[in-house]
Amino acid sequence: MSTLYLLSTGPGDRAYLPPIAQQALARSQHLVAYSLYLDLLGYLTENKQRHELPLGKEIERARLALNLAAKGENTALISSGDIGIYAMATLVFELLDNQKERAQNPQWNDITIDVIPGVSAIQALASRVGAPIAHDFCTISLSDLLTPWEVIEKRVHAAGEGGFVIAFYNPVSHKRQWQLEKAKQILLDYRPKTTPVMIGRNLTRKNETIIYTTLENLDIKQVDMLALVMVGNCESKQIKTAQKQWVYTPRGYGKKL
Amino acid sequence: MSTLYLLSTGPGDRAYLPPIAQQALARSQHLVAYSLYLDLLGYLTENKQRHELPLGKEIERARLALNLAAKGENTALISSGDIGIYAMATLVFELLDNQKERAQNPQWNDITIDVIPGVSAIQALASRVGAPIAHDFCTISLSDLLTPWEVIEKRVHAAGEGGFVIAFYNPVSHKRQWQLEKAKQILLDYRPKTTPVMIGRNLTRKNETIIYTTLENLDIKQVDMLALVMVGNCESKQIKTAQKQWVYTPRGYGKKL
Repeated sequence: MSTLYLLSTGPGDRAYLPPIAQQALARSQHLVAYSLYLDLLGYLTENKQRHELPLGKEIERARLALNLAAKGENTALISSGDIGIYAMATLVFELLDNQKERAQNPQWNDITIDVIPGVSAIQALASRVGAPIAHDFCTISLSDLLTPWEVIEKRVHAAGEGGFVIAFYNPVSHKRQWQLEKAKQILLDYRPKTTPVMIGRNLTRKNETIIYTTLENLDIKQVDMLALVMVGNCESKQIKTAQKQWVYTPRGYGKKL
Repeated sequence: MSTLYLLSTGPGDRAYLPPIAQQALARSQHLVAYSLYLDLLGYLTENKQRHELPLGKEIERARLALNLAAKGENTALISSGDIGIYAMATLVFELLDNQKERAQNPQWNDITIDVIPGVSAIQALASRVGAPIAHDFCTISLSDLLTPWEVIEKRVHAAGEGGFVIAFYNPVSHKRQWQLEKAKQILLDYRPKTTPVMIGRNLTRKNETIIYTTLENLDIKQVDMLALVMVGNCESKQIKTAQKQWVYTPRGYGKKL
């Protein structure tokens, strides 16, 4: 039986693609992805059949990948970052768990699925700025397309209450701007104005930008669809070395010094 | 000036070590780590000076790595998983931020630091069981050696209240057993007894084991120091294919089917 690889490419630069992902690509006849992710893979996609479906066609991508694999051909469904984190992996399981879909496609049941994790945006940004997620952290998507805003708002409160370092995925979109400002206002009730905030964009890619700011000064206009926004907790600290500015969240070893 | 690489090895299998990490190893004269992590790297550590300090000597490892790099020799301080997540990276910054340490070691200021992220245990476990962290999630360390239990308990409540999928790092130790049971009891106030729970051990390594259970049936005796415990949220679902059992947390695309 053929394999459906659910394959993570990491933040963008091919230097983050581990051997296990390279081997999965080598074994796949078909690659299914949003075109940008395939472009980032460069020569690794040569001699493969590319199936490029645009943003918004996520269900179609997952269904196509399942159908190709069910036909007996090794297939890679590809997401940047970690395919298990706000990405395509779960859509495959949502389809497999849907009665109607499964009745129409009984052959899906026999596919071998192999999920290959990768470095997600939260980790790429953390590595660029120091060690901000060294202690308890959470991720929150601010997209209310599929999740009611009340649920998201409750999570922002919970993250504030619990003192988690927070990474906001999907912080804004063309049509969706106010959610990040609202989240900022909520967090200002729980954390000092001076809490470190980092905005990462195009991490490890050409035109990478990283902005260091504070919760009070977080300017929504500096954030776009490609950005990840990270908010420290009450313990997070900024320091400088000759090289650059860093942010870290201590685990508490400092007490022993 | 020399570089101090803060280097992640991923879950264990060398197949998860990306080219950027391999290059950092190749450029380093000194490797500083807990010995198990160096053993997992195998031939990649040949012709390198190995500095193996046992568990409990975390500050000493970070200080040694800074001192070696300050002498002008490229050095890699190595953690398994992601060095930025409950690992060594932040200790370097805690030392750099400590007045006394910095006064004694002014040469540390000129070291170039390069943090290389990797696949953390939460991602390795997620990839083995499907897509459980496809929506908002958090990580909580249950070790109260450096964090007061009241803080940890508050975070478990917040995670329950917010409906985050949760990964418990350091769930138990030889001396520390009751915290996981307490966390389980707290979460039973927020989530159904049938909530999927997964225990991963030795992920990607020899003798990997994964246990699928539920919140009600989570048996602390099945958990040890090497385990990661993941608790789904109210949306997380179990399904079966011919291959095996899976757990996923939907993003909500299923509503569109």
